[in-house]
Amino acid sequence: MTHGEKNEAPMREVYLDYAAATPVDPEVAEAMLPYLTERFWNPSAPYARAREVRDDVERARGTVARLIGARPDCLTFTAGATEANNLAFAAVEGHVVVDAIEHESVLACAGTHARRTVRVGADGIVDAAAVARAIRPDTELVSVELANGEIGCVQPVREISRVVATERARRLEAGEDTPIYLHSDASQAAGALSVNVATLGVDLLTLSAAKIYGPKQVGVLWASEDVRLRPLVYGGGQEGGVRSGTENVAGVVGFARALELACERRGEEGRRLAGLRERLREGLLARVPSMVVTGPKSPKRRLPGLLHVSFAGVEARRLVIALERAGVSVGTGSACAASRMRVSHVLEAIGMPRELAEGSLRLTLGRGTTEEDVDYAVEAIADAVRAEMARVGTDAAAMAALAGGWGRR
Amino acid sequence: MTHGEKNEAPMREVYLDYAAATPVDPEVAEAMLPYLTERFWNPSAPYARAREVRDDVERARGTVARLIGARPDCLTFTAGATEANNLAFAAVEGHVVVDAIEHESVLACAGTHARRTVRVGADGIVDAAAVARAIRPDTELVSVELANGEIGCVQPVREISRVVATERARRLEAGEDTPIYLHSDASQAAGALSVNVATLGVDLLTLSAAKIYGPKQVGVLWASEDVRLRPLVYGGGQEGGVRSGTENVAGVVGFARALELACERRGEEGRRLAGLRERLREGLLARVPSMVVTGPKSPKRRLPGLLHVSFAGVEARRLVIALERAGVSVGTGSACAASRMRVSHVLEAIGMPRELAEGSLRLTLGRGTTEEDVDYAVEAIADAVRAEMARVGTDAAAMAALAGGWGRR
Repeated sequence: MTHGEKNEAPMREVYLDYAAATPVDPEVAEAMLPYLTERFWNPSAPYARAREVRDDVERARGTVARLIGARPDCLTFTAGATEANNLAFAAVEGHVVVDAIEHESVLACAGTHARRTVRVGADGIVDAAAVARAIRPDTELVSVELANGEIGCVQPVREISRVVATERARRLEAGEDTPIYLHSDASQAAGALSVNVATLGVDLLTLSAAKIYGPKQVGVLWASEDVRLRPLVYGGGQEGGVRSGTENVAGVVGFARALELACERRGEEGRRLAGLRERLREGLLARVPSMVVTGPKSPKRRLPGLLHVSFAGVEARRLVIALERAGVSVGTGSACAASRMRVSHVLEAIGMPRELAEGSLRLTLGRGTTEEDVDYAVEAIADAVRAEMARVGTDAAAMAALAGGWGRR
Repeated sequence: MTHGEKNEAPMREVYLDYAAATPVDPEVAEAMLPYLTERFWNPSAPYARAREVRDDVERARGTVARLIGARPDCLTFTAGATEANNLAFAAVEGHVVVDAIEHESVLACAGTHARRTVRVGADGIVDAAAVARAIRPDTELVSVELANGEIGCVQPVREISRVVATERARRLEAGEDTPIYLHSDASQAAGALSVNVATLGVDLLTLSAAKIYGPKQVGVLWASEDVRLRPLVYGGGQEGGVRSGTENVAGVVGFARALELACERRGEEGRRLAGLRERLREGLLARVPSMVVTGPKSPKRRLPGLLHVSFAGVEARRLVIALERAGVSVGTGSACAASRMRVSHVLEAIGMPRELAEGSLRLTLGRGTTEEDVDYAVEAIADAVRAEMARVGTDAAAMAALAGGWGRR
């Protein structure tokens, strides 16, 4: 079976990069469209039709709030997760604690503060005890994502919230008045995991519509009533003065619908994706036994639809090109970093040898993925890897040596 | 003729608030839709389909650049004009000069700098000589909008650019190395006036899609190659590192199409709107001779589709409600301020007496406005004003007294 010989249309189009972008769900698009066309009014305008649109924005806010177990007035809609993360960090001036595999926007924000960066193990999991050790008396913010978008590990945010609560109690006891907050970027998690803020025990939470079959450039930051947000942009005073600019009505309405659908489908879809992921993993391992799978072993600690695989000594960028000829779209890491084709900071942080990191693919499944897609992708990926192995003249033993024992942990 | 008695559907729906929000043009919506659904890929992802989307973003950037006579790499797409204005002001640290009737976002940004606020006359026009006097040796930014969205005056930006150039030449001569830039928010102007950056002589220009029949929360900041922009948000490094976050592909593509249409239709549509505006003005004056019209007399100095009218002693908010019963949607000023129902800073700045300012309506016409709409609105507005005059027991003479001679300038 050959896949996509040159000048030949691929037999199938298989998209395996849902962590980079999701299509807008048709129900979400349907909810959005009226606000582009007939319901286009400015929500701040004074007449009834505009007030109705304002009500629709507030209803969407209420929906999102209900789905995360929060008060509507504690939500700030933003132009995506990056802005929401920036807004969270702008709420504090003092020391911050982050882990080493956070999204680039969180690391960049942390870079504008005094900070401690907590290391992670080979599975990417942040150790709550390490967070506890990193917290100083002047630490004001701890930021740990709910799930990592590259290797799929789900962080023990609840456990870390207990660490933060303990420090808060200590400060109260000691009469210290420096606040400490826990922020979590749940952009990559919201499609698969509960994002109830009380259950998570967070003070700030970032969500993104673009990762849950909603529109791009729509996000939200939830902040508990204890947190005083500081604006990044100034103007007309929308979003409680925290985020000025005429509201993205269609985007906000679409976001609410997308989160509703994500919450409704989470359980069933999670099980389906976990099954497909196993099918993909087993299919690939059967064909390329030297393949290394990264991420937590426990299914409870990983995103159901994400499989991170590495082929030592094989260049991922060449695999991407071979696979696109076969109609299979795969990622090599977070899209932002991928475009610059450098080794991902996540793989560096978990200590993966460079020769393995450079041969890594992030395969993410989503609502459109079928068993047939997975089976087709298994063959296409295995073919591409074997062809590359033959081209560079490597074999399983050489690959194992390059992997430096990584796959045997 | 009665308009919209209670519990009776209005005979016609007439929208006269195009300066607050425009519907998305069907052609723009058509251009956007594929990027929500089938072409949803992340422009930073490494495979061909995603690179095509990235090319589409760059093509849109090229289109916008061409239409404003600029280099594509000098454009930064933002989530609207407010963010673009904030980005412009973040480029400088020193003293700034603004005029008193700028959009709230510009005034708020100026508030974070040492500043001089130039007064304007009763017609709202900024005097270039006054700008020259306001510039200090440490002034780094002058910001004057191209057209005001409330009273419709078109500012002499070209003339002000000569003032800035003169100061720049003086500094060069004197061996001073403080830069000075001219920024113009052209959000309200782009539908009606040329926004060629070279002709205007600006260094920074803000545009908004939401005012030219494009989507909300999509804007652009153009900055000449001399200006070094500083990011407001940090992250994946999109938009040349200046504005991180996965691109709003649909929004950017829609923006480019909207600006194309605006430029194509500008001349003809401007003449049509100017004619309708005169019809509206004359119709209203014939029925309510005590009505005061604000804004420059010269058609060259005002937006063609905007008519600002005031009725002394009559509460605009009551007119808005009466008019919405008649199916006519009108604004009372900038939508942001309107929602807080306070007297607009623009009317305060031009020295309009409070009794007149509180009875002000901003009527803005757009692509959907017909002669029939205007004739219907004339009757509805005149009816509403006369009913309010009767209710509060005022007459033309009393109104003239309250206006304090404003209308007779």
